[in-house]
Amino acid sequence: MTLILSNEEVEAALPMADCLAAFDEAYRALGRGAAATGVRGEILSPTERPEALYSLLTMAGVVPGFEVGAVRINSDILTWPRTAHGLRREKVPAASGGRYVGLVLLFSTVTGEPLAVYPDGIVQRMRVGATSGLAAKYLARDDARTAAILGAGWQAGGQAMAIAAVRSVTEIRCYSPTAVRRRAFAEEWSRKLGIDVRPVERLEDAVAGADVVLGATNSMQPVLPPDLLEPGMHVSSLKRLEFYPETIARADVVFTHMRGGAVHMTRIAGADLARDTDAAKENLAKAVGQSAMPMLPELLLGEVPGRRSARDITMFLNYAGLGFQFAVTGHVIYRKARELGLGREIPTDWLTSALPS
Amino acid sequence: MTLILSNEEVEAALPMADCLAAFDEAYRALGRGAAATGVRGEILSPTERPEALYSLLTMAGVVPGFEVGAVRINSDILTWPRTAHGLRREKVPAASGGRYVGLVLLFSTVTGEPLAVYPDGIVQRMRVGATSGLAAKYLARDDARTAAILGAGWQAGGQAMAIAAVRSVTEIRCYSPTAVRRRAFAEEWSRKLGIDVRPVERLEDAVAGADVVLGATNSMQPVLPPDLLEPGMHVSSLKRLEFYPETIARADVVFTHMRGGAVHMTRIAGADLARDTDAAKENLAKAVGQSAMPMLPELLLGEVPGRRSARDITMFLNYAGLGFQFAVTGHVIYRKARELGLGREIPTDWLTSALPS
Repeated sequence: MTLILSNEEVEAALPMADCLAAFDEAYRALGRGAAATGVRGEILSPTERPEALYSLLTMAGVVPGFEVGAVRINSDILTWPRTAHGLRREKVPAASGGRYVGLVLLFSTVTGEPLAVYPDGIVQRMRVGATSGLAAKYLARDDARTAAILGAGWQAGGQAMAIAAVRSVTEIRCYSPTAVRRRAFAEEWSRKLGIDVRPVERLEDAVAGADVVLGATNSMQPVLPPDLLEPGMHVSSLKRLEFYPETIARADVVFTHMRGGAVHMTRIAGADLARDTDAAKENLAKAVGQSAMPMLPELLLGEVPGRRSARDITMFLNYAGLGFQFAVTGHVIYRKARELGLGREIPTDWLTSALPS
Repeated sequence: MTLILSNEEVEAALPMADCLAAFDEAYRALGRGAAATGVRGEILSPTERPEALYSLLTMAGVVPGFEVGAVRINSDILTWPRTAHGLRREKVPAASGGRYVGLVLLFSTVTGEPLAVYPDGIVQRMRVGATSGLAAKYLARDDARTAAILGAGWQAGGQAMAIAAVRSVTEIRCYSPTAVRRRAFAEEWSRKLGIDVRPVERLEDAVAGADVVLGATNSMQPVLPPDLLEPGMHVSSLKRLEFYPETIARADVVFTHMRGGAVHMTRIAGADLARDTDAAKENLAKAVGQSAMPMLPELLLGEVPGRRSARDITMFLNYAGLGFQFAVTGHVIYRKARELGLGREIPTDWLTSALPS
């Protein structure tokens, strides 16, 4: 039988602690070449609506040690509304009921069988959170107690879970320019984590004196000036445009997530929206010297030293998702969902064939 | 509701004539840049069995004119048994019930929704058959009446369907070195096509005087010597090692399927089996000058002339599958399956999400 899981069931089957433990093991395997991410392939197509494109995105990964492979598929209608700060990529919930289409298919490397199918919404937050959490585990000071989270959205929640799992954090400050959002975030995560989460109106007040600063904004322009960094801080970002190049240059130790992940984009004639935002990201990657930075697996394997002293400013640039992460989370989700008896089942025969192909 | 279809239902929903008509339209769109194939990504991983690898393969395509995109996923256990003629790539039916795992997911470019999910077994034959059929439609002599099919396997059946659909064929000769296989093929396809299909013991007897010669063997070594080609013939092949370079050189007009389809292979440490067969294929592609050959869409759009006279030997090299073909067949299958009321349904909400990702 093949499991079909909802976002709610995925959430129950993927506790942050389990996710972090699996990531810790799997990133070491990745660093040794004993696990892999495949190419990230995207096809962009024009639609009937001049302001929207259709995007079909696939990524895949295999972790032999967990005996799983995963394919993630996103089938999205995209628009690029112009904001005060430039173009912003937005997914349109065009599926019936105002829903999004992001799927993970998990396979067994032993039998080839499809083990599970589920939406990627929860996974998307947990994989990003766990990756930042893993970097913080090995880069932040052991005595870190105060974290600042920049942003109050979906990904900010993942960052809160992650830092609470790797350090004995007693205070989280949430900065968002929107009062109602930062207050809601503080209320939600105080309750969920049992930690004092405080809404903070000004970014500099959130950052001042924090041991860990976790960028999780949707900003299309830099938000963290270099002079706010303090000795001993650990700082991370999820978004290429979130930090000034000067902010990155101020860190003593900088790791990037992974480099060299192959990316392949196919544009159908007419699918020319927002080419400039891609170019801007590439230019920024060059400006900050991302191609020369050491990577997370090198940190975990001890191939490149991390923090050298309590005064070092350490940094982690958590850009770009890896297909590999969907195999790792899939491993955790599948085992736990089976253990807890979660999900619906469909006969695996529906998804396999007596014919070779 | 999202349709789940079996191979039998896919077969009922994909008549060769409909498939050919959709391919004719879609290859023109592809040639104009109005449809696309994404990157073909494969991850090869070692398994517990030293003689077997796990392969996770994805390909994708979008045809905006049909308002569909498709992702094909193969999750296979592969072995390379050594035969008298070298290594042969074989899929192991390791899924429960001795089954294979090849899946197509079809999406709407309008809503992003998953429209249908089905195994790729039938599609795999129909897409290959229709592509060869399309080339024969535009390259074979209009008065072609006799076809030779080299091979008696699964793909040979697709070739028989395709040539019967594009020319008023009155005789098909099936060559296979194995008597029981060629006889079974002749019996099956005589009945299915209402055409005289004859088993032929010697390859040269099958080819002599045939108007169309369709290679569909599994051979790892060339089977068609150049001196068997006759003026006016149309000849095609599905497999890079099936023809001698000299056989290809003897044709007056040669088209290849598509060139430049991006391919990305990731090998996990230890997944080193059969590297040499890949190298052999590449060398052969170079030897026959495939990189300079015109392609099927150029033929359909009239950008490169095809047959110039009744004496020209024309040739089509139908190598490598395209993700695009799964979108085209998906379009036909989905419409027809809906029309005929085929398949099981699962709520589309099971595969979509209220969360962006």
